[in-house]
Formats: sequence, structure tokens, C-alpha cells
Amino acid sequence: MSKGALTGVKVLDLTRVLAGPFCTMMLADMGADVIKIEEPQKGDDSRQFGPFVNGESAYYMNLNRNKRGVTLNLKHPEGKEIFLEMVKKADIVVENYRPGTMEKLGLGYEDLAKVNPGIIYACVSGFGHYGPYKDRAGYDIIGQAMGGLMSTTGWPDGEPTRTGTAMADVLAGLSVTVAVLAALKYRDNTGKGQKVDVALVDSVVASLEIINQIYLVEGRNPERIGNRYESVYPYDSFKASDGSLVIGCGNDKLFEQLCKVIGKPELAKDQRFDRNPKRVQRHAELKPVIEEWTMMKTVDEIVDMLLEAGIPAAPINTIERVVKDSHIAGAREMFVELEHPKAGKLKITGSHLKFSETKVAFRKPSPLLGQHNQEIYGEELNIPEEQLKSLKEKGVI
Amino acid sequence: MSKGALTGVKVLDLTRVLAGPFCTMMLADMGADVIKIEEPQKGDDSRQFGPFVNGESAYYMNLNRNKRGVTLNLKHPEGKEIFLEMVKKADIVVENYRPGTMEKLGLGYEDLAKVNPGIIYACVSGFGHYGPYKDRAGYDIIGQAMGGLMSTTGWPDGEPTRTGTAMADVLAGLSVTVAVLAALKYRDNTGKGQKVDVALVDSVVASLEIINQIYLVEGRNPERIGNRYESVYPYDSFKASDGSLVIGCGNDKLFEQLCKVIGKPELAKDQRFDRNPKRVQRHAELKPVIEEWTMMKTVDEIVDMLLEAGIPAAPINTIERVVKDSHIAGAREMFVELEHPKAGKLKITGSHLKFSETKVAFRKPSPLLGQHNQEIYGEELNIPEEQLKSLKEKGVI
Repeated sequence: MSKGALTGVKVLDLTRVLAGPFCTMMLADMGADVIKIEEPQKGDDSRQFGPFVNGESAYYMNLNRNKRGVTLNLKHPEGKEIFLEMVKKADIVVENYRPGTMEKLGLGYEDLAKVNPGIIYACVSGFGHYGPYKDRAGYDIIGQAMGGLMSTTGWPDGEPTRTGTAMADVLAGLSVTVAVLAALKYRDNTGKGQKVDVALVDSVVASLEIINQIYLVEGRNPERIGNRYESVYPYDSFKASDGSLVIGCGNDKLFEQLCKVIGKPELAKDQRFDRNPKRVQRHAELKPVIEEWTMMKTVDEIVDMLLEAGIPAAPINTIERVVKDSHIAGAREMFVELEHPKAGKLKITGSHLKFSETKVAFRKPSPLLGQHNQEIYGEELNIPEEQLKSLKEKGVI
Repeated sequence: MSKGALTGVKVLDLTRVLAGPFCTMMLADMGADVIKIEEPQKGDDSRQFGPFVNGESAYYMNLNRNKRGVTLNLKHPEGKEIFLEMVKKADIVVENYRPGTMEKLGLGYEDLAKVNPGIIYACVSGFGHYGPYKDRAGYDIIGQAMGGLMSTTGWPDGEPTRTGTAMADVLAGLSVTVAVLAALKYRDNTGKGQKVDVALVDSVVASLEIINQIYLVEGRNPERIGNRYESVYPYDSFKASDGSLVIGCGNDKLFEQLCKVIGKPELAKDQRFDRNPKRVQRHAELKPVIEEWTMMKTVDEIVDMLLEAGIPAAPINTIERVVKDSHIAGAREMFVELEHPKAGKLKITGSHLKFSETKVAFRKPSPLLGQHNQEIYGEELNIPEEQLKSLKEKGVI
């Protein structure tokens, strides 16, 4: 098995549910030693989220593969003591509690920096650790709503629409990983640790690129325009006999090509559609003309014909099609099988980070609650067996 | 001005438009010396994308702040020679050409590794650098369609819906930044460079978390369910008198609280709605009951009342509201002003990466085409003035 890019990096993972675990999942996939610290008895809330396989949460198993797991009560004085011992040996701590929670426990960044000045302390939260809304709860839907993403997603005659995955969580998870790795580079150069603070709402705002620029420059609120694009047409979805597909004609030449394929070469010279700006303006007129042709064929037939003619096109894949796709599931290995001690063989989402030298490996399934208590507390922290037993009885671990 | 986390890291940026430039923008924001290499005369395609300020593209200016810029013709033998000289002194090369383009130029990863074995070569493309679809064009809409995101976004009675920003590009841009920084850590530890390969489609698939798991475990295609959530209700959007808002009641206690605020305390004990699973099942019945109340008030009135009662809620912000928000635009500084030599004062999107020690700084506006040719070729590569003149005449720079 190849060495991971982050082999040797030690991460303490206090995160729950999605944004934080998505970050530490990537770190673990890339070879970091991620120790997931969960509340005794209870564990990460997402252990209770379906779908389940033999009673084990696939939600949890997917996001927590490649990590080791311990239980620890951070409210107990002995729990704090053990945690600070672990911080001394760690490079990174990641948490996604409500801002102020760690400070109240006496385990905020300043406290951790006292025992390890090089520590990188990363927090993910709805609104970030400063600013007037910092204490508000920050679920994914709140990030998508407040950041402006919902206002630009959907149809002209319809409602603002939530993106169909927890996109605010995912954006924040990716973003905090970027920040943590940059902070690690700085720590390696200078010895100095720091706190990095990533918010769901900020991450959504940053994703809105040109959408923000339209308002900042022109002072107009970008409208919801369904699947088409403001500046090029046809760059939209079209209905086929068995589903939908997208076509992206970036210029007049590709449009001419498209007109040939759909058996209407005269359209390319039609005064109404011959240049891109006219097509953008008359998109509502042009779409049914193209759909007249697409509705008569299947998605796969159309995509094959268009790609052969050099016209960018793709099926609008259902998840079933994605999971069975020879490129995505096959060559790119975007779904992988793991063996879990309780769930048995299980398919999870693979890694989209492809390295030539340090290929991502799926070394172990997600931990059972407290699975590595003995290994980490007993063998690595050298806590004697008697003491471990007593810690367990007191509910510390 | 604080030092950036990536101060001292040298990046050669061959990327155009969005996914690649989003990556190098973050690297530049964090202090890396990013040299954007553009085609002589023409430059990055996005220089032609609106909206414009005094003829300068705000699209380009936003994504390319903090970078220096040179022109270079990589097809010309002397252009290649100069590029290879630059590679010798660089840490990272990022490109988002169609796979095979750099290899055809004799500038693929293997070629660059010959002159600098530690080089990190990062590529972003629609489908990645291997697999049966690698040669297909990969626009954002194609990534969103093929990766499955569109199939899960939208309304039960409506069409698959594109997320209203170039989300596939943004996800790939964030993801390649994660991979590059991990590869940098590995290079610092071992001296070995490598190629990292990130695809838009893979990045979309990775973002679908629980959506993929539903199919992988239960064998069912997740349906489009608008703004609500499969397992909790009310966690949805609601219409107010002047717009829409979202409410997230994660448990029975919060629902009871909500019922009090809307003046219908009896609802919380109603056999139809008293437990969360019943509310999920009867969501279509419950939504209008809540909207009867929300429709009578403004978004801001409702959000204030709900937050005061401890119920997670947020406005569905238009971009105008985001840009004027005291938390997002104010405390979190998500919009910043830059002075551009041609466009003048200009507002762009700020950075969502908040560091305590290495605060992101906006040191310079995006480069004019070839703005730093003299500085980089003349002063840093020591190419004599006579030769620079001749290179310019030959169209090499």
C-alpha cells in the first residue's frame, strides 16, 4: 500500500455529523492519523442517522472511514487532562461545536496553545467564531439560505431552491481542509500554530463567484433562470424520451454542428438564431425546436450522437446511473467496498482526490464507539489498565 | 500586513476561467507567489466575460486578485524553454487544459519532473486524466448533470435543476487545493513531487454524501423533494409577506416552541404532529398551517421572533441582502474593495478562510495582460532587455 500524502500527521477530531467529519475524512483518506473523539455511551449524532446496515449507520460509516475512535468526556476534569495530553502530541484539532463551547470547557484555542504552541485549531460552524450572528445555530439549510445560494437556484416562476445535498456543509468541510493544510505549512516553516475559523455561510458566499459580481457591479439581483446560463445558448437541459440531458454549445460553430445533427441545418443561418446573443435572447423560442428532436430519442442515443459530432453533452444522471457508470464507478473508483465488523461488506463513496505518488487508500472501516480506547489510551498514552477501568466506571471514557 | 500562511510558496498558474483560477486564487490569498501565465495578445478567456467595469472583466478581476501575470506562448520552442526555467524554481504548477494538451506540448508531468523532481503538478478537468471519458469537454453544467447533483435538486413535480452557481467548478477548485497542499506536505517530508488529478464530475459525486449512501444501501434513487429534508420536519422553506425564510426544527421540543410562537400551542399535542416521524409523513398538511402565520409577517419580523425563541431560522437572502448584511459583509468581511489601475475602485468577494495568525490580505488587483513580464522575465529570470524585445516581436511573450 502506498504511503499517504499526510502520513505522520496527527489529528484530534471532535467533530460530529457532516461539515467537520467531511474535513477529517479527507485528512484520514490522505493518510493522517485521525483520532475521532466521541461522547461516551452516545457518540456522534450521525450514528443514529439512516440508512442503516445491520443497525450501523451508513451515514456515519461513510464519513468516518480510515479514522480511529475513542470515547472521552470532555466535561470531566480527568477527561480534560487526558485530552490535553493528546493535544501535546497532535498537529491539528478540528471541532464543529457552537462557538464558545470549547472555551467554556477550558479547551479553547488559547488553552490548547499553552500546552502545544504549534497546535492548529480548526473550527467549522454556521456563522463563524466572531460577528453578530456567531451564536446562531447553523444547519446546512440555513447556510444555503443566508449565503444567497437558494435565491439563485430554481426556476423563473418557482421558489428559491435548496441544492439537493448538504452543500453548505460540504463547501465548509472542503474549505476548512484547505485552511488547515495551509496552516500546517506555516507551522512547519515557523513553528507557530494558529486558529482557523470557517463558517458555512461564508463558504456559500465564496462559492457564488460571478453571481456576487453581478450584484456588486450592476446592482441587480441575479434571477433564477432554471438550467440555462446567462451568456450562452444552447447551454441548458433538454427532455429526451426517457429522461433529460444537458447540451453546452459554447459558440456559433458548435451550434451549426448541432443544427446539422438534429436535421435542421437551415436553423444555423436563420436570422433569429445565427449568433449567440440572439440565441440567448430567444432561448424560449429555440428550446422547443431542439426538444422536438430530443424527445424522439433516448438520452443515451442523443448523448452518443452529439459527442460523436464534437458537441458537449451529458446525461442528467440519476444516482443509479452514477453508481453504475463505467467511468465514474469504474475507472475513477468513486465507490469502494469496505468490510465493517458489524455491517459486513459495505459500499461507500470513494475519494475524488487522485494522487500519482500517494494514492488514497481505504485502510479501515469507521470505528465502533470507543473501539480504540485500549490501543490509544493504554498503549499510546501508557495509562495503566487499572486506571482505564476506573475511568470507564466513572464515565470519563 | 501579516505574513500569509503560504508565503514563500511559488505557483505557476496556467489555468483559465473558473475551477483552476479558484484554486490559485485561494493559494494567492494565503500568500503564495502565484504567477498567472496567459497566452500573448489574448489572455484568459474570462477577460471577455461580463460584467465589465471600465472595459475590465469583474469575473476575471475577482478570480485573479493577488496574482502576478505574464504572457507566454507555450507552443513556441523559446516559450517552452522559458517555462521550464520557471518550473525549476517553482513548487506547484496548476493547469486546467483538456487532458493530453500539456503532454502534446512536451510539458506534461513527466517532462516537468525531469527538470524539477519535486514539482507538484495539479490538473483540473471535467472527467480527470484517465478513464474512458477523459477526452470529453467538461463544463460546469456537464459536471452537475453527470455527477448526479441535478437529479437531486428541485421539486417533486419539476425538472432536475442546476445549482445556481458553477458549483462543479467551485467544488473541483476547492478539492484540487486540498490535494495540492497535501502533496506539498509530502514533498516537504520526502522531496518527492507528484501529479494530482481532480475532476469536476468526481468532485460532484464526492459532495453527494448521504444521497449516494441512500442508493448504495437501499437501492432507491433519492427523489427531488424541494427544500424539505427526508428525516426531520419542519426543516423547510416558508413564504412570508415579502419573501421566504427557512425554519429548522430538529426535534419535538423545538416544534413545541414553534407552535407557541405561532399562537397554536395545541398543535404540539395534536396526534397528527406530536412526534417528528409523523410530521415528516404529514409535511404537506403541516406546511400550510405554518405558512398561514408566516404569510402575515415580513421575513425579518419572523426570523427575529423565531431566533428569540431559540428556533433555528434564517431569511432566504437575495444577493443584495447578503452584500448589505452586517454579519456577512460587515464582521466577516466577505466583500472587499480593491483599486484596479483601469477599473478603479472595485468590490470583489473576500476570502472565507479566516486565520488568527496569517490573515488573508488583498495585496494587489488582478494583473493586466503581461503586466509583470519585465519584473519576472527581466529581473527574476535575468533575461536581457534586448532578448525580451525580440521575444515580444516573435510573439513568444
